[in-house]
Amino acid sequence: MKAVILNICPVAKIIDITHNIPKFNIPMGAFILASASTYFPINTIHVAVVDPGVGVSRRPLLIETKNSFFIGPDNGLLVLAAEKQYIKRIFVLENPALMLKLVSNTFHGRDIFAPAAAHLLNGINPLFFGSQINKLRKPAFTKISRNQKSIMGEVVYIDGFGNIITNIPADELNQNLYGKLITVKSPTSKSTIEFCRSYSDTNIGELLALIGSHGYLEISANQANAAAMTKIQIGDKIVITAP
Amino acid sequence: MKAVILNICPVAKIIDITHNIPKFNIPMGAFILASASTYFPINTIHVAVVDPGVGVSRRPLLIETKNSFFIGPDNGLLVLAAEKQYIKRIFVLENPALMLKLVSNTFHGRDIFAPAAAHLLNGINPLFFGSQINKLRKPAFTKISRNQKSIMGEVVYIDGFGNIITNIPADELNQNLYGKLITVKSPTSKSTIEFCRSYSDTNIGELLALIGSHGYLEISANQANAAAMTKIQIGDKIVITAP
Amino acid sequence: MKAVILNICPVAKIIDITHNIPKFNIPMGAFILASASTYFPINTIHVAVVDPGVGVSRRPLLIETKNSFFIGPDNGLLVLAAEKQYIKRIFVLENPALMLKLVSNTFHGRDIFAPAAAHLLNGINPLFFGSQINKLRKPAFTKISRNQKSIMGEVVYIDGFGNIITNIPADELNQNLYGKLITVKSPTSKSTIEFCRSYSDTNIGELLALIGSHGYLEISANQANAAAMTKIQIGDKIVITAP
Repeated sequence: MKAVILNICPVAKIIDITHNIPKFNIPMGAFILASASTYFPINTIHVAVVDPGVGVSRRPLLIETKNSFFIGPDNGLLVLAAEKQYIKRIFVLENPALMLKLVSNTFHGRDIFAPAAAHLLNGINPLFFGSQINKLRKPAFTKISRNQKSIMGEVVYIDGFGNIITNIPADELNQNLYGKLITVKSPTSKSTIEFCRSYSDTNIGELLALIGSHGYLEISANQANAAAMTKIQIGDKIVITAP
Repeated sequence: MKAVILNICPVAKIIDITHNIPKFNIPMGAFILASASTYFPINTIHVAVVDPGVGVSRRPLLIETKNSFFIGPDNGLLVLAAEKQYIKRIFVLENPALMLKLVSNTFHGRDIFAPAAAHLLNGINPLFFGSQINKLRKPAFTKISRNQKSIMGEVVYIDGFGNIITNIPADELNQNLYGKLITVKSPTSKSTIEFCRSYSDTNIGELLALIGSHGYLEISANQANAAAMTKIQIGDKIVITAP
Repeated sequence: MKAVILNICPVAKIIDITHNIPKFNIPMGAFILASASTYFPINTIHVAVVDPGVGVSRRPLLIETKNSFFIGPDNGLLVLAAEKQYIKRIFVLENPALMLKLVSNTFHGRDIFAPAAAHLLNGINPLFFGSQINKLRKPAFTKISRNQKSIMGEVVYIDGFGNIITNIPADELNQNLYGKLITVKSPTSKSTIEFCRSYSDTNIGELLALIGSHGYLEISANQANAAAMTKIQIGDKIVITAP
């Protein structure tokens, strides 16, 4: 993919975010992309591929947001990141002149997404890539719902320390919750824990909730493994109830 | 290695292909290099090291092809990639003025290959690196053989999905095989399978043969694990018989 | 971190050394940094993070050496590398104007170290980052001690081949030891082995000592696994006695 980009746009500056997303783990890819993309310079072109559906019908996309561009499959991977930046226009990549001459069934990253990124960087107008559409596919992990007292989301990632990261962004939570107790319900657990500013705001070994450095609600434990304590897993539905 | 390159040629643009070749797995390194190098810009200098023989006698090489350059050990690692691009000249790296001052016995990548790449990029003539030779070492995995009805190759890679990739390049196979049945014989299996254009051209769970996105003959199964089904392993000899 | 750097200093050239240091393994991080940093161009800014103490009290540092700069936590990670290059001045990073606006408790790499590196590259004087201090924290693995006949160090790394790498730098060892027998004592073993120039200077299967390509004393075995033979582990104290 990098070779293809440099062939089309030799001045491209290519930065790796990660190559360690497990096979098929779209929620984790979406979370990592949403966490990292916020920090990139304005007008960055983000290319992401976690793509079990390659070769099957799913649209290749170019999303233009207020700050930057996202290129990848229409399977939810780009949704969290793009929605953080206010989506302006969405295009389907369908112009063969802006793809490699031979498009394989198995490697759209190289044959469709990388060339699109390079042509866009060269100044090709987004309108030339394909038809404009109005809606992204939004799998369950990209949605949250709420009622009077609760907010429902999903676990998108559990890090190496057992911290449980949900898809609930900071701005969905009331700032004056800090220091209050909230109830966290999962399929395997129910805990009433403090909404803290940092891990060390509770006793060692105790569960807590906080906004992680990535900007999402995280269930953690001070110097302990929250995932092991709660049996919560990636994909679990989480219900947060404030007092 | 990157530091050494930048010290000698500060404007070098360095792109990682992979750092995940298992120790000593020369066939896999050769396959990945051959797959990726095709896509790089003309005159790219490819540096590759999978080198169990470092410290032992094996020559460090600079290969000039029609499109680009390959630098690395003479153990077969460069052969598949270089042969894809038509080899023009081969040199042994033996000029100490174009190596680091101290050449270790254990890290030729840093001490010999990286400096060679950087000096070449600076415009040093290939003739200055050392004496010209005519032949590369060609381990078994770099060779295929054929007779009237069969073509014999070797498995160079099995990917995370169980797809079995051979060293038989697309141009060794007759284009009008598509849709026909071929026989694939390995030390552990014999199957008669269809030569397809894509994974989905057979029923789910069925074995098939196709040209992968890398340009080599691949034995796969539609949504199943071909390696598990056939017990074929890396290094196995494969005989393909067309009708 | 890369995104933050490029936002502040768009012309930065960013090179990855490694992302494979195991969690919390400061000695291994320190060793890899010390091995690699020597080869980078003059005035390189090295940023390193292996940081179990983030969020707890440990100072974020900028170290200026004769050749380059090191930015990271004051937990020993930078010591081996910085001492190899003669330390000139040490500063604590405490100027909030040279950090991200929001500094998290959990990701100082992104919020403090990366911005510091980028501002330094932009030409900000080291004096502006914070107060100057005189001493680094030096955990056990950064220290060696000696008496008349022995030198005492620690194992900082065991590589994939079972080679045991200590924190004892080449210049602490007498060059005329080559070819002599030395005694290596660890908590689990005591061996009298030859101090060699290369792995192949002993018989196959035999232990030896040598200066590795990284510049540190290494206990190895010719085509065998020295760590398995001696049961030596990372963190073990090692006593070397010369004749």
